Amino acid sequence: MNIEILAIGEEVLKGFTVNTNAAFLSKELRRRGYKVTRHLVIPDVPEIIEESITDAFRRSNIVITTGGLGPTSDDLTSAILAKIFPNHASHLHNSLGTAKGFAFSEQGKTIIALPGIPREMEAMFLSEAVPFLAKHNPIKEKQYVEDLYFGILSENPVDSYLSSLKLERGIEVGLYPSLGVLHVAFSGKERLKLIAAKEKVKEKFKDHFFDSETGSLEEAVHKIFIGKNKTLALAESCTGGAIAKRLTTLAGASDYFLGSIVCYSNEVKEKFLQVTLDENGAVSLEATTQMAKGVLESTSCDYALAVTGIAGPAGGSDEKPVGTVYLAIAERGKQVVAGRFQAKGKNRSWIIEYTTNFCLFSLLKYLESHTPPMFA
Amino acid sequence: MNIEILAIGEEVLKGFTVNTNAAFLSKELRRRGYKVTRHLVIPDVPEIIEESITDAFRRSNIVITTGGLGPTSDDLTSAILAKIFPNHASHLHNSLGTAKGFAFSEQGKTIIALPGIPREMEAMFLSEAVPFLAKHNPIKEKQYVEDLYFGILSENPVDSYLSSLKLERGIEVGLYPSLGVLHVAFSGKERLKLIAAKEKVKEKFKDHFFDSETGSLEEAVHKIFIGKNKTLALAESCTGGAIAKRLTTLAGASDYFLGSIVCYSNEVKEKFLQVTLDENGAVSLEATTQMAKGVLESTSCDYALAVTGIAGPAGGSDEKPVGTVYLAIAERGKQVVAGRFQAKGKNRSWIIEYTTNFCLFSLLKYLESHTPPMFA
Repeated sequence: MNIEILAIGEEVLKGFTVNTNAAFLSKELRRRGYKVTRHLVIPDVPEIIEESITDAFRRSNIVITTGGLGPTSDDLTSAILAKIFPNHASHLHNSLGTAKGFAFSEQGKTIIALPGIPREMEAMFLSEAVPFLAKHNPIKEKQYVEDLYFGILSENPVDSYLSSLKLERGIEVGLYPSLGVLHVAFSGKERLKLIAAKEKVKEKFKDHFFDSETGSLEEAVHKIFIGKNKTLALAESCTGGAIAKRLTTLAGASDYFLGSIVCYSNEVKEKFLQVTLDENGAVSLEATTQMAKGVLESTSCDYALAVTGIAGPAGGSDEKPVGTVYLAIAERGKQVVAGRFQAKGKNRSWIIEYTTNFCLFSLLKYLESHTPPMFA
Repeated sequence: MNIEILAIGEEVLKGFTVNTNAAFLSKELRRRGYKVTRHLVIPDVPEIIEESITDAFRRSNIVITTGGLGPTSDDLTSAILAKIFPNHASHLHNSLGTAKGFAFSEQGKTIIALPGIPREMEAMFLSEAVPFLAKHNPIKEKQYVEDLYFGILSENPVDSYLSSLKLERGIEVGLYPSLGVLHVAFSGKERLKLIAAKEKVKEKFKDHFFDSETGSLEEAVHKIFIGKNKTLALAESCTGGAIAKRLTTLAGASDYFLGSIVCYSNEVKEKFLQVTLDENGAVSLEATTQMAKGVLESTSCDYALAVTGIAGPAGGSDEKPVGTVYLAIAERGKQVVAGRFQAKGKNRSWIIEYTTNFCLFSLLKYLESHTPPMFA
């Protein structure tokens, strides 16, 4: 069941807005067994909209549009759709805003027109468009998907292992690496075969595996704490608050997260965390260990994580090049676990992102099984 | 000079990766006077790539592709391009990775093939593709652009004012609101007329205007501090480190940024910032004022900003609904400025994002002219 996604709007074409709508729809449709074969972005011009929709229907049965339905242009879009589909449209309810949504279906051809504002689009898609699709374009031969997520694992060994498995035809595997997280996606029509292949890969790289439906490390950490009645506090230097930000985006974080001392200066490290800097400096095993201990001493937290490193572009040396990071995890009543790793990535924001993922993954493994971080 | 951008890759079609490449290219091309008329995302299938490129050339003279050029597929892509363009390709140098890049141009039709990894693509585009375009497809009639950015301003009053101006034909204006920042984009062939219109809008809403080429509030704050020899420290409750994260993404932040006390619990507020919570609770004018004073007392910072609020979805009341935020700005030796505002946005991440932008904009205006925040 092929679907094309058509975004209408100058803001995307001009690059002011990234097309997150297409990514959201693609992910949600894939999970439900539909296949998205094309994303297109066009300006809000009636002739182009009409031509693009007609063109898409030559290839595919389902077209989903986003945007171009604001108070000023909804009549226009409505008129264009009515020209292609002479029957009446179903109105889709917008629970969060004023932009309208429509759906038409005729002889297996379906068009669903959603608003451009992500939150409104997402809500309308889930509550209105999904049932409409299920009714008018039910999946006949479902494409199953199974996803695996690994922390701090590069794609090469997984690629080699997959080749050695000689998987049967009909099982598609994709490797999608990001900074510190590797996503392995299996898809195919025979679910049991997919699961068997998935289990083999999971077992082979079990030290790197983490249990998640979405690949979000903060969600995995969050879930463990919510059930544990334990608390966490951080001391962040090079990540500059990025770890705290990731954790606090999730509702309920205040149940376990006490806070983070973002100690971007030596002064804050010394005054708030009782760190005594020596000749090893602020980016050292000594500093990160003291930072973690300082958090344990100054708060009632059960677990403390401390991180300090060189995010660059300046500040590197032969001994400690840009990307050098020290991490410490402390548990009350236990010995501090600390070490060094090299953050991957060629610029500052990549290094911060990789370091954030490394820290969250290390914390997760420590919480699960007291496994120490994967220091180089 | 119309350009179409073609992304090749399953990871975008499946929604695992958001097409930030198209946004980057569109923005950069627009600044140089080119017009991007279409974004397309297709799978890495030779027939579909060939057909899509041929189709694009029916409408446009320039096609830029991203992705589909990895070590396993570059010969393939090269073969497809060679089929369409029998002449020799120019190889584009990749300074950051191994994926290749190509460019062909013949009788005004140009194709530029860039890698899919954003950082490599961006570097290759700026250093190799831009000069290639300038040589083979120079802009004849330049489309000038002028951008304005405003903080905490909704689009309605700007829209009304623009209507009242009765701008001449040939001046296009677009309004692109995001959470707390409004982008007003002017474009047209006569630069002086654009600037005149821009100046009128800037003057009319001058309290909301901030000077920026990209709309980044953290860059604007960063610039002020870098030249000022003053320091900043924060106390963040509801933003959970998001303000610190935004500031520390920029290289050189350590020159002025001492740190942030992410006080997600009452314990951290009390122990680190000497806050004494009373019957008004942790989300109150009293708490935020004490937090700001605590930062001033505990560090050597010249400026302190403190924020506390209800990010939701739980924790709201009739008196203080979800989205209620208290902000305080303190300058050493001056009186603390504090107040309340209602964060816009219908969910937690929107409220955090809006609050972060409100705080950065308020800090910027305070630094520039001691203007107090725009409390409701």
